[in-house]
Amino acid sequence: MSKRITQQTYGERSKNYTNPAARRLLEIMDRKKSNLCLSIDVTTTEKILNIVDATHVDIIEDFSEEFITRLRQLSDKYDFLIFEDRKFADIGNTVVHQYSRGIHKIASWAHITNAHPLPGPGIITGLASVGLASGRGLLLLAEMSSAGCLAKGSYTAAAVQMAREKRDFVIGFIAMQRVETLYPPMDVAKASADPGAVEDFLIMTPGVGLDVAGDAMGQQYRTPHAAVYESGSDIIIVGRGIYGKGDDVEEMKRQAERYRQAGWEAYLSRLQTIAQ
Amino acid sequence: MSKRITQQTYGERSKNYTNPAARRLLEIMDRKKSNLCLSIDVTTTEKILNIVDATHVDIIEDFSEEFITRLRQLSDKYDFLIFEDRKFADIGNTVVHQYSRGIHKIASWAHITNAHPLPGPGIITGLASVGLASGRGLLLLAEMSSAGCLAKGSYTAAAVQMAREKRDFVIGFIAMQRVETLYPPMDVAKASADPGAVEDFLIMTPGVGLDVAGDAMGQQYRTPHAAVYESGSDIIIVGRGIYGKGDDVEEMKRQAERYRQAGWEAYLSRLQTIAQ
Repeated sequence: MSKRITQQTYGERSKNYTNPAARRLLEIMDRKKSNLCLSIDVTTTEKILNIVDATHVDIIEDFSEEFITRLRQLSDKYDFLIFEDRKFADIGNTVVHQYSRGIHKIASWAHITNAHPLPGPGIITGLASVGLASGRGLLLLAEMSSAGCLAKGSYTAAAVQMAREKRDFVIGFIAMQRVETLYPPMDVAKASADPGAVEDFLIMTPGVGLDVAGDAMGQQYRTPHAAVYESGSDIIIVGRGIYGKGDDVEEMKRQAERYRQAGWEAYLSRLQTIAQ
Repeated sequence: MSKRITQQTYGERSKNYTNPAARRLLEIMDRKKSNLCLSIDVTTTEKILNIVDATHVDIIEDFSEEFITRLRQLSDKYDFLIFEDRKFADIGNTVVHQYSRGIHKIASWAHITNAHPLPGPGIITGLASVGLASGRGLLLLAEMSSAGCLAKGSYTAAAVQMAREKRDFVIGFIAMQRVETLYPPMDVAKASADPGAVEDFLIMTPGVGLDVAGDAMGQQYRTPHAAVYESGSDIIIVGRGIYGKGDDVEEMKRQAERYRQAGWEAYLSRLQTIAQ
């Protein structure tokens, strides 16, 4: 029988995927010894380019094609993927336009994006009709980190099931834990046909912080160790923990390295745990 | 005891609200004899201005401040409100930026917008911190019209409850039926303190069509009569039913008038129904 997903290295796991964005992401993580996704919620392109990463294009005041060109150059130069945390949440026909068109043309430059499973499977069909041909990957929001969130229980179970129906495009989940283990495939006969096969989804976890407990609008934080070691998350998403202390670039670099190290050590500890 | 909401005219109901966007919307509906919300999913500003309404700014290729200025002029000239169907779906801190900033600066021109209750009450707190001071109104997506949608049962009940906690800003729901009647207030003692008071929420219903049953990506349609008369909806949202037959402006006008009439007749029939 194969090793459990949480006991496989990121490098080993890249072979579990056919989706090119997922494979490349896992290879980069392995090579750079980093499971940190830096989430930048600032509102000008210059600030973003200074920090060399980006998220949330829809809050940028001076978005332009020039910005995207420069961002893609930096993505090649520094070997990272671009994840646009767009949180699509509309019906299939509408997300086709939102993903491919408008001022942002997300599909043309974001290797990975995400969507709420809320509208039903049509949202995945719509996004896949745009992104699959160019090797893009999609994460489904199966859970969120905010207080009073409604994505739980049967909602999360439905999200996992939807992802299973479209494995070539859905590469994982935004979640607080290994939701695919929590909600195993219902079709046991199908699963047991290949007992050695282990299902692999990327778990990306928001709400990770080392110094704070929450904000005034319901965001809640956990440590990298809690996310990666205790809950089996693969990638920690950190925003304000890194850039929230002002414009001092050296301080941001220090914080980014601090989080990279905490996330990576939690991953190494996890690999060393004896399989149950 | 007051008349049930579905037996009150839109004009009468405008007095049930403190929110200026809701009051103005109901007054306009009464004056113009229309409960039709025209939803335009096209991708250039010129097309939109030609049809004199707008939605989904994030799919527009040539969005500009000039466009917004012209749209607002048309809104004054033709006496309609602008509803940006943005479907916010992120945590409070992020939606603050998405609503107020970026290229679109939605709060500065959209009288009404909408949000998924999914992230929890923080999303309402965040949006209200931007929109309340300038008299904006928010609709919560309590249900959707697409196949396999997860917004149902306890999810919908939680959406209604969240709306009740912020009545000055949340003016109603995107829903297929009168969800506030389906999920009455849990605090009966509080409700019975004023037995004559009737809770008023605007119900706006998508997926309304006279000629079609659905699309290839899960959208499902019902008639204006089914939405307004049978399910108690207040406003029908019609998109492709009106502009989906090509660029012929006369044909669009004909279809818009056809839907306006169907929606208004269903409303008049509803008013004449004897209260149960």
